[in-house]
Amino acid sequence: MGSTPKINSERLKALLDGINRFGAGSPGAGFNRPAFSDADMAVRDWFAGQMQADGLAVTRDGANSVFGRFGDAVGPSIMVGSHLDTVVDGGAFDGALGVAVGLECVRAMKEAGVQPATPIEVVATSEEEGRFGGMLGSQAIAGLVTAEWLSSAADADGVLLADAMRAQGLEPEAVLGAARPKGSVKAFLELHIEQGPVLEREAIAIGLPEGATGIVNLQVTLKGTANHSGTTPMDMRADAFAGLAEIAVQIPDMIAQSPSEIARITIGKVELVPNHPHTVPGEATFSVIIRDASEGVMRGLQRLFYRATAAVAAKHGLAHEIEEKSVIAPVAFDGGLVDLLSEEAEALGLPARRMISGAGHDAQTMMALCPSAMIFVPSRNGISHAPEEFSEWADIEKGAELMLAALVRLAA
Amino acid sequence: MGSTPKINSERLKALLDGINRFGAGSPGAGFNRPAFSDADMAVRDWFAGQMQADGLAVTRDGANSVFGRFGDAVGPSIMVGSHLDTVVDGGAFDGALGVAVGLECVRAMKEAGVQPATPIEVVATSEEEGRFGGMLGSQAIAGLVTAEWLSSAADADGVLLADAMRAQGLEPEAVLGAARPKGSVKAFLELHIEQGPVLEREAIAIGLPEGATGIVNLQVTLKGTANHSGTTPMDMRADAFAGLAEIAVQIPDMIAQSPSEIARITIGKVELVPNHPHTVPGEATFSVIIRDASEGVMRGLQRLFYRATAAVAAKHGLAHEIEEKSVIAPVAFDGGLVDLLSEEAEALGLPARRMISGAGHDAQTMMALCPSAMIFVPSRNGISHAPEEFSEWADIEKGAELMLAALVRLAA
Repeated sequence: MGSTPKINSERLKALLDGINRFGAGSPGAGFNRPAFSDADMAVRDWFAGQMQADGLAVTRDGANSVFGRFGDAVGPSIMVGSHLDTVVDGGAFDGALGVAVGLECVRAMKEAGVQPATPIEVVATSEEEGRFGGMLGSQAIAGLVTAEWLSSAADADGVLLADAMRAQGLEPEAVLGAARPKGSVKAFLELHIEQGPVLEREAIAIGLPEGATGIVNLQVTLKGTANHSGTTPMDMRADAFAGLAEIAVQIPDMIAQSPSEIARITIGKVELVPNHPHTVPGEATFSVIIRDASEGVMRGLQRLFYRATAAVAAKHGLAHEIEEKSVIAPVAFDGGLVDLLSEEAEALGLPARRMISGAGHDAQTMMALCPSAMIFVPSRNGISHAPEEFSEWADIEKGAELMLAALVRLAA
Repeated sequence: MGSTPKINSERLKALLDGINRFGAGSPGAGFNRPAFSDADMAVRDWFAGQMQADGLAVTRDGANSVFGRFGDAVGPSIMVGSHLDTVVDGGAFDGALGVAVGLECVRAMKEAGVQPATPIEVVATSEEEGRFGGMLGSQAIAGLVTAEWLSSAADADGVLLADAMRAQGLEPEAVLGAARPKGSVKAFLELHIEQGPVLEREAIAIGLPEGATGIVNLQVTLKGTANHSGTTPMDMRADAFAGLAEIAVQIPDMIAQSPSEIARITIGKVELVPNHPHTVPGEATFSVIIRDASEGVMRGLQRLFYRATAAVAAKHGLAHEIEEKSVIAPVAFDGGLVDLLSEEAEALGLPARRMISGAGHDAQTMMALCPSAMIFVPSRNGISHAPEEFSEWADIEKGAELMLAALVRLAA
């Protein structure tokens, strides 16, 4: 059975640094490995080479996710990892850290002479950041990709997914063949940075998400009358921005009326027409993102928002339209796996906080295929998707030790 | 002394239509005669020709304002008119109507054999719409243009006023020579569309502005932290847009605290950063336009706005900056002239409403040179600076009759 495996922090750091040599800009700038970019292709080759050198059986599926298998060549596996792609000008930790921790855990087990009874597959998933609107790598593994979506998916610049894949010598049709059969993966574990401020505020190194929030994505348009700001008396205006402001200030009340402690409503994007200082805004279009871990809570907040919008529009003489652009249902992670992680954290003497992930992750997609769970480590100032993204190495080590302990137990 | 002069409505309409053949687009589209454009140059040539055919002594000053003098060649004059330039895609009435009414009054007087004891000058001022940031024509006449401003003024596309003039064969330096000596103009009268909804709402054909509002033009920036809308709890946000909304909804209270009935505060332009649906806005920059006829009221509202902004910023953990971009002092028109117009309206049996102009006009600039006043006629739905700009002909006739009566009395 060998000795007790131990995370080698320097080795892990070197691996993460190795990944981040790809798509790196000048110091202080962000990392650029968008899905199917040259940097994204190159980092996968390099990472596959690392795993090969470790003696893992390396494969790549039709969606360009890379796997390194440790243990028996046949039979169900435990999968561990995250993604290697980044947003434009992203940080050094989002995705890459989870991939590196996955491989470091295997290296630690090999070093300690621990042979898994159940094989462990380290995975670097493809296209998690949604360049083409989904989480292609994990959706492909979980069998959630359709041929129709594959042929129509395009990025914000209108580049088709199929064309982006072909430009790198990949066959889009092969994505459908990446689906793993039910039962072939016993569990999926993903370590990721929190991308929020909660763990840092509470000075806890380990977050254990019990689920990921759903998203109701609305676009609201208020239409009034664009008029001269000097000649139009205050009481004769149909000011679309005044209406928007009056709706926005009701958000704290809506949140207070919700039974949830994690419900969130965000107005992040606002476009006024004509957007001119001397003209009363005739039109305001804005985004509303409602998130919670409960579908019922989200829908309740959505109803409150609709009611407030209708009342404000009537008061200000505005027409209003609300478009439900998309709805993503909340996902609960596997209770047994979360409990297992919690027990292992306790055994290691690591305080851990159960929480809900506000961001989307491969693990929630993988729930469609197999029991899945996550480990969060703190993000400095809650910042992510930016060059300033940072996690303390002491926290990362704790998260990695917990992942290692969980894998050893699951694979035993 | 001749018979009683009378406005010829058909002749006035034909004159206005003649002006609007210049810069006209397809039916329903707006009119384009920006200052120093080819259409602006051509309409002035045409209008000068009209006045010449009427036997007026036509001159053009260094700013490209066109004058037609009726009566003695020497001595102080009464000036009447408005501007011929338009905003981009402007309406058929803004400026052009006042110029046409000026000439029609002279035509009516000539037709009736009325010879003015004080000469009347019909004026079509240059560049009133502020392409280059001022009201060049009337500022030049009033002696308010400086050599420094002349050499630096540029339009929104960066085209220098000096270059735009030279491209039309005009000498920018000649603008300074357009200044009329004090005492050379006894009065300036301007008929203009209201560009607001007040006269239409009250079904009164004649507005008599007692002054024009001043403008305090502020740019406010709120700086918080751009964060992930899913991972950042509501109570840990520094949401710049939430702050803006909370300031904006206090505007009605600020207005209510003001002793003025015409005070206005407008937030017309809003820019969020990063302006992305899934990101808590890290920065909000917005315009604030405060208007009133009293400098004291404007400054009082400005103080209320500053106080509200500081309080909201502190509450939301936002940094704030307020830049006073420009301040235009309110102008009072000449009380004697306003009274004269009021008396003549009464004599004609025309209900007239004293009011304050919310828009800027040549007449307020001319107050620096001579007693000035205005006649407003109603704007349908208060719309201006748009192809939909419209005034009922029955109202226009009443305004023109009042202008004629006032000119006859002033020139007698």
